[in-house]
Amino acid sequence: MGKPRQTFQTPRGTRDFFPADMAARRHIESCWRSTSTAWGFDEIEGPTFEHLDLYTVKSGPGIVNELFSFQRSGGDTNYALRPEFTPTLARMAVSQGKALPIPTKWFSIPCLFRAERPQRGRLREHVQWNVDVLGLAEAPADAELISVAIAALDRLGLDPSMVQVKFSHRDVVANLLKGLGVPDDQLPAAFDLLDRRDKMPAEVFVDKASSLGLNEEAVGRFDELAHTTTEPGSDPTAIKGLAAEDAGHLGELHRCLKDHGIADWCHVDLGIVRGLAYYTGTVFEIHETSGAERAIAGGGRYDHLVELFGGPSTPACGFGMGDVVLSLVLADRGLLDVEAMLPRPDAFVVCIDDDMSSHLVPVTSRLRHAGYHARSSYKQTRNPGKLLKEANANRARLAIMLGRELNDGVVVIKDLEAGEQHEIQLAELEQAVARLLDRS
Amino acid sequence: MGKPRQTFQTPRGTRDFFPADMAARRHIESCWRSTSTAWGFDEIEGPTFEHLDLYTVKSGPGIVNELFSFQRSGGDTNYALRPEFTPTLARMAVSQGKALPIPTKWFSIPCLFRAERPQRGRLREHVQWNVDVLGLAEAPADAELISVAIAALDRLGLDPSMVQVKFSHRDVVANLLKGLGVPDDQLPAAFDLLDRRDKMPAEVFVDKASSLGLNEEAVGRFDELAHTTTEPGSDPTAIKGLAAEDAGHLGELHRCLKDHGIADWCHVDLGIVRGLAYYTGTVFEIHETSGAERAIAGGGRYDHLVELFGGPSTPACGFGMGDVVLSLVLADRGLLDVEAMLPRPDAFVVCIDDDMSSHLVPVTSRLRHAGYHARSSYKQTRNPGKLLKEANANRARLAIMLGRELNDGVVVIKDLEAGEQHEIQLAELEQAVARLLDRS
Repeated sequence: MGKPRQTFQTPRGTRDFFPADMAARRHIESCWRSTSTAWGFDEIEGPTFEHLDLYTVKSGPGIVNELFSFQRSGGDTNYALRPEFTPTLARMAVSQGKALPIPTKWFSIPCLFRAERPQRGRLREHVQWNVDVLGLAEAPADAELISVAIAALDRLGLDPSMVQVKFSHRDVVANLLKGLGVPDDQLPAAFDLLDRRDKMPAEVFVDKASSLGLNEEAVGRFDELAHTTTEPGSDPTAIKGLAAEDAGHLGELHRCLKDHGIADWCHVDLGIVRGLAYYTGTVFEIHETSGAERAIAGGGRYDHLVELFGGPSTPACGFGMGDVVLSLVLADRGLLDVEAMLPRPDAFVVCIDDDMSSHLVPVTSRLRHAGYHARSSYKQTRNPGKLLKEANANRARLAIMLGRELNDGVVVIKDLEAGEQHEIQLAELEQAVARLLDRS
Repeated sequence: MGKPRQTFQTPRGTRDFFPADMAARRHIESCWRSTSTAWGFDEIEGPTFEHLDLYTVKSGPGIVNELFSFQRSGGDTNYALRPEFTPTLARMAVSQGKALPIPTKWFSIPCLFRAERPQRGRLREHVQWNVDVLGLAEAPADAELISVAIAALDRLGLDPSMVQVKFSHRDVVANLLKGLGVPDDQLPAAFDLLDRRDKMPAEVFVDKASSLGLNEEAVGRFDELAHTTTEPGSDPTAIKGLAAEDAGHLGELHRCLKDHGIADWCHVDLGIVRGLAYYTGTVFEIHETSGAERAIAGGGRYDHLVELFGGPSTPACGFGMGDVVLSLVLADRGLLDVEAMLPRPDAFVVCIDDDMSSHLVPVTSRLRHAGYHARSSYKQTRNPGKLLKEANANRARLAIMLGRELNDGVVVIKDLEAGEQHEIQLAELEQAVARLLDRS
């Protein structure tokens, strides 16, 4: 067996998580999980790969090139690494039939995969927090969904000056587009243009808008519509030209966001579309306010999805928040202090006398079995200075020093924060550690 | 888009985790993680797929049929869903070069994949706890590794009467085989036969053993060797026919296991081989004592592995423990009380007066932002009996009842365990909840 070292690389667009990276990842995942639970969502998970058809039924055959798909050697079933979690969620919901509770509030933290060229903020494998509400229609559920997303960002240290929820409503935008003169059969094309507005030169936009049947003045108003935003926390019914029903849609969501105490994290942005056919009502994205990064999260209402997967008509809304952009935003703001996130040892056990070396493992083991995070030195040295240096390098709170005092059943514990030393009876080790850690 | 419902199934050999399933999975994973941390291991993670070569370099081209492998559409790089974590670990360790700490104690909880026919205890996707020590030679590291495995099983509620570590040592068995007359060049074949001893009829074993060059008496002694075990906790140096060096190997590990306080969880079983070329010293498996299920865990020492992946010569040992067999064993023993593992709401908020419905979301939201797991009723009813029934069905500890008293700024909290009701000021909601939950 040779050593083709050139292939022993992390696959392109994927990541190795060394302990510090993993501490940051766990910090984010723990925050997602605890916030989801506090908000009354139940955790689910599905397979890492699904039948390929599960994705083509929703997104059409064009999705296949964006997926990693495969068969078993000698098999003929097509599988794909999941590019998103929603089809799995819909499949699981449908499989429950009438046993599915109304409402169903589920979250999941899956790894997802895209066979694309990796870019800043977009990798081939990432971790995504998915939160969904099935069975509840209208703004109260949309607002609860946005609320849990904001709560997690709040707990991670972000505030409304750093991140904002930009929300819109597909029906509102459809009515505004029709008011400009876009015929019904051109609405999908108009949404598509709105979605890609900022990715093309102005003259291309004018051309494309004109081809929708809009005159020059209407093209200008389309451009205005695409850039219509409100101030954070302000009443969206003040937007000019809204029909009463549409002002109702936006105003109702705004009221619900106020009930959740998060109105100042949110503002209307009628340029938010979230793709083409999928969403049916409220849509939203969460962005860093500087606009430097991709969206942190995106979601909205998709009332036809469960039906598409063979279930009954079910109102539903959900969002996904990936770890890649979020980590960039947190790091930019100095909110990923990895050192502080690494688990910190309660005790570091060292032997400073050769005659006592047989106690090292049993003492360490006792602390671990008592529930403490205990480490010990694997070094051969008995030099107290070097060993205490190692204990400090491990960021341990206490150093347990095994020396000659053990002949009298006594152990020295050094509190590495307070700098104090305590002599305690070996028999009372666990109690002494608990007391010193303020756990007793 | 049609509805080919027949394909909307969970892929064969994979699992959907509904909230109760997920609670059980999280219970096991949390136990693995907290035990690893207490024992001083740092968490890492790698990509879900790797370059295919990473697996063939260790296991040879024969492994390919046991893997799910794939290319990106239009690409020419071969990838595989990881069937095990050790090659990723070795790749990551090698990538650190001289920056790799000595020792390195890493754990990981990856999803792993096998393209095999699913069987009881063996699925196509499973979760495996991997724990490894790099840079420490000999029995003390082997014993620490076994100790963390046992500690997790202990925390999950198992005891030495339910599960046992069966350990052996490749050098000891090699010497015993040579003593029977197996020539050096037949040792791999002899290990292979030992490994598969109990999967073949007795006469096939005799044939195969004879073809190794053993006479009838030696074949009988080979059979005896394959079934040589000691009593839990007993001194393995009492095994007959051990050379001094070999008694030293087994005796030293036994002494280290005693230092960790886990000798009674362990016994020698010279029939344990753990495959062919991989392991170099201590090998072990953890089995349910009834013998009804597959191994719960397996591992040992593999001092050449890091070198195989292009790194420096590095002593190393590790084990893997999958979630599938472990879950079966825990369920068999009544140790997976899923109901008790589902996150339990601290408070369930209900509105029993139509005039107060505008308070439902703000009150629930306040509790969530204060860190509590708070749910509320989405039902339209204001009937206190029905709403309290729902609170109980949610297993909430407290019901927060919003009624006419709110006109005076008063909320009724019902302690659903104690059955007591308390009237508190809405302004002091969080403090009252903390007090009632014994958190204050």
